[in-house]
Amino acid sequence: MINVTIWNEFEHEKTDDEVKAIYPNGIHVALAEGMNGHGFAISTATLDQDEHGLTEEVLKSTDVLLWWGHQAHDRVNDEIVARVVKRVHEGMGLIVLHSGHFSKPFKALMGTSCDLKWREAGEQEIIWNVNPSHPIAEGVDSKLILEHEEMYGEFFDIPTPDELVFISNFEGGEVFRSGCTFRRGQGKIFYFRPGHETYPTYYNPEILKVITNAVKWAYPTSSPAPVYGNSQPIRELKIPVV
Amino acid sequence: MINVTIWNEFEHEKTDDEVKAIYPNGIHVALAEGMNGHGFAISTATLDQDEHGLTEEVLKSTDVLLWWGHQAHDRVNDEIVARVVKRVHEGMGLIVLHSGHFSKPFKALMGTSCDLKWREAGEQEIIWNVNPSHPIAEGVDSKLILEHEEMYGEFFDIPTPDELVFISNFEGGEVFRSGCTFRRGQGKIFYFRPGHETYPTYYNPEILKVITNAVKWAYPTSSPAPVYGNSQPIRELKIPVV
Amino acid sequence: MINVTIWNEFEHEKTDDEVKAIYPNGIHVALAEGMNGHGFAISTATLDQDEHGLTEEVLKSTDVLLWWGHQAHDRVNDEIVARVVKRVHEGMGLIVLHSGHFSKPFKALMGTSCDLKWREAGEQEIIWNVNPSHPIAEGVDSKLILEHEEMYGEFFDIPTPDELVFISNFEGGEVFRSGCTFRRGQGKIFYFRPGHETYPTYYNPEILKVITNAVKWAYPTSSPAPVYGNSQPIRELKIPVV
Amino acid sequence: MINVTIWNEFEHEKTDDEVKAIYPNGIHVALAEGMNGHGFAISTATLDQDEHGLTEEVLKSTDVLLWWGHQAHDRVNDEIVARVVKRVHEGMGLIVLHSGHFSKPFKALMGTSCDLKWREAGEQEIIWNVNPSHPIAEGVDSKLILEHEEMYGEFFDIPTPDELVFISNFEGGEVFRSGCTFRRGQGKIFYFRPGHETYPTYYNPEILKVITNAVKWAYPTSSPAPVYGNSQPIRELKIPVV
Repeated sequence: MINVTIWNEFEHEKTDDEVKAIYPNGIHVALAEGMNGHGFAISTATLDQDEHGLTEEVLKSTDVLLWWGHQAHDRVNDEIVARVVKRVHEGMGLIVLHSGHFSKPFKALMGTSCDLKWREAGEQEIIWNVNPSHPIAEGVDSKLILEHEEMYGEFFDIPTPDELVFISNFEGGEVFRSGCTFRRGQGKIFYFRPGHETYPTYYNPEILKVITNAVKWAYPTSSPAPVYGNSQPIRELKIPVV
Repeated sequence: MINVTIWNEFEHEKTDDEVKAIYPNGIHVALAEGMNGHGFAISTATLDQDEHGLTEEVLKSTDVLLWWGHQAHDRVNDEIVARVVKRVHEGMGLIVLHSGHFSKPFKALMGTSCDLKWREAGEQEIIWNVNPSHPIAEGVDSKLILEHEEMYGEFFDIPTPDELVFISNFEGGEVFRSGCTFRRGQGKIFYFRPGHETYPTYYNPEILKVITNAVKWAYPTSSPAPVYGNSQPIRELKIPVV
Repeated sequence: MINVTIWNEFEHEKTDDEVKAIYPNGIHVALAEGMNGHGFAISTATLDQDEHGLTEEVLKSTDVLLWWGHQAHDRVNDEIVARVVKRVHEGMGLIVLHSGHFSKPFKALMGTSCDLKWREAGEQEIIWNVNPSHPIAEGVDSKLILEHEEMYGEFFDIPTPDELVFISNFEGGEVFRSGCTFRRGQGKIFYFRPGHETYPTYYNPEILKVITNAVKWAYPTSSPAPVYGNSQPIRELKIPVV
Repeated sequence: MINVTIWNEFEHEKTDDEVKAIYPNGIHVALAEGMNGHGFAISTATLDQDEHGLTEEVLKSTDVLLWWGHQAHDRVNDEIVARVVKRVHEGMGLIVLHSGHFSKPFKALMGTSCDLKWREAGEQEIIWNVNPSHPIAEGVDSKLILEHEEMYGEFFDIPTPDELVFISNFEGGEVFRSGCTFRRGQGKIFYFRPGHETYPTYYNPEILKVITNAVKWAYPTSSPAPVYGNSQPIRELKIPVV
């Protein structure tokens, strides 16, 4: 059983009629429903909850956290950000979606600006699988076509991903590293590009398959936590002559 | 002409007689002298200077910054740290030495704890070249032997390096990824393990050769700065039918 | 159910009394017994069998192939080698053990000499886990100690591994990238260093845990096979004006 | 002084009027002229010469070899292929251009099929720089636009590149990893996609800048050649008790 927490800023869906029409209960609920049937225990959390819904208890029992945010990144409390980052370091998986590229936890974990080019023109995105043997690509076709999406374009200011799984082609001419894995501490991170709030991307079964695969991939490994600090030698040392 | 700034915390050398005996003018001066003859324009900066010697002007004119710190990491002002990180993102090279693994700029750029095992026992370190065609290994032998060094052991909590150049074997039984490259924004970063303050490591010609090579490697590329934000299509878009 | 085929050259065990005493039925049988209890369907194959036991049928039904060879690499038929390489390209996992570094299939898949330093002196090897969140390190301790092993030392002439999971420290002073992953075509490859024929390494439960994890990791992904060749455009092209 | 040898199959230019019109003296001569002014000592070699122009002497004195081939890959002698691969292992740089992806030396060095999708429709290619601090991107703009090129599309069956420098967007909807680095033995390899014989791509100053940068990047490092084989311990071993 994988404990999944879906965090959503949940602002656009309350204030923008176009978004409300697509995600009436919020992106987090659409994702939770779409990820049904995989044996995940799914909870949701949103910005306006106490501690943004990410209490110590919630995070402690979360195996994989999904993160969608956009217009309210700066309203996420720094203490909660530090808590999320610490849990990733301890092994919690993190799936960062779309405009979450600019979220505080992702930027803190990357160490870069995470900036990019963008355009809201409803253009076609074709997402190509460039790592077909990767578990996140399990059962995924060679390409996914989204007829209308926001464009994200390179240069995407991230560290070189540990693994590149998807690259997008946009109708206007850009490319984007759309599916990227990173390891930070004991935690696995997957950034997945699609999901602008004005398009029904998170109802697309192929997109949901990728996210579901990513959750399974990001599940923490049960290795002993690394031990740091002052350490006794395993082999006898010669007495140093200084 | 490469403008190099060597930043040193410069504390041990003033308060500890053993260290003072090895580096009477400070590690920064030993490094500056040791890197002579390569056509670098070398300056130094230390913690106790105004703005730690790292004013906007100094950083702006620095191509590659070296960083040695140990016991006073927390006394480095956060504003200066942000300034260093920003300059790395803009393209300034950064060479982080030894206990600089725990410095604020390195941790901010890595997004991890940067923790490790350590032992001060003056044991033998053998540094193996595992990437002989890398420019940082230019003219460097297959192994470097340091008779007495502090031990650093895995797990070293860093992101997977872009390139692994050196791995150390310690007499007590540990291994360590001793020479690691990373790219963050437009800047190149090299972490190089050796250099505990109680050993004359920075007088070793092979160690100096590696550091000198790293400076040349980390010199900024003169590509145009990436452009981010709202972007016009290169190709004409079909009108989206939503 | 994962179909595993363990291929062993099976020469030392028949001609060398010391080896026979350790692996009376061959390394392949010791491995098969040691990997029991994980729900694998395990078969073995050896050099002296028809087609080295690796017929089209056997390989077609093999999900993950293990390979141990040493003194008879050149007696492996090139046609069988091509068959193994093709199956890896199609998705079959491959676990290459110890002296298998010099096997024909591994060299063909790497494109390098795969050469290294070695010493048969029964010295201590300490294998450090440098990628604790990797599935191959699942449940594996931070270090594995083998009191007596053959030494393998860097420079190990392989392409940069996709992922580095283990690094060994040898008593005599060397280091070695002991656990390395590679992807070739649709197939996943894991090279794992330990296992000289004169030591009981493959009875060590920790070593068996790593190999078992690697089998699970290398199981083929069920993505559609890539399509190559002449391809129709997805979007309408403007008529080119040459 | 960098000794560059440009190898060209030189078949299309002799038999196809359209190609002859663009490259009357062959692609190799166009490249040699275009790379003028960088202090390279440039020679050319072609398929129809004795030993394809790649004698032991020629290769021994070559620092960086460029390779363009297409319709006659199978006419390249296997002995010459082995010679080229061996020289790469020894440190010679190799720049593989366009349809050279299917050349024998490249396939032998990659260990994969190197297959891909393609389409000859004269469509627009936009090449994006995704690694702006890489020396191969030195002075190169964020994107290069080629109005008419052959399409190459993913999945491109290569090992994960050590570094990804360029990604292409094609008008028809595909993407391609267009600029990839690999290290094999002591040699550096750069694969660069553009350059179909029916388009004047190799007269494009930006394309020539990339190739010129790649030559400088691929120049051999002057480190001592690795030593392999039976090796004495650096530290005294305890006598093993078997």
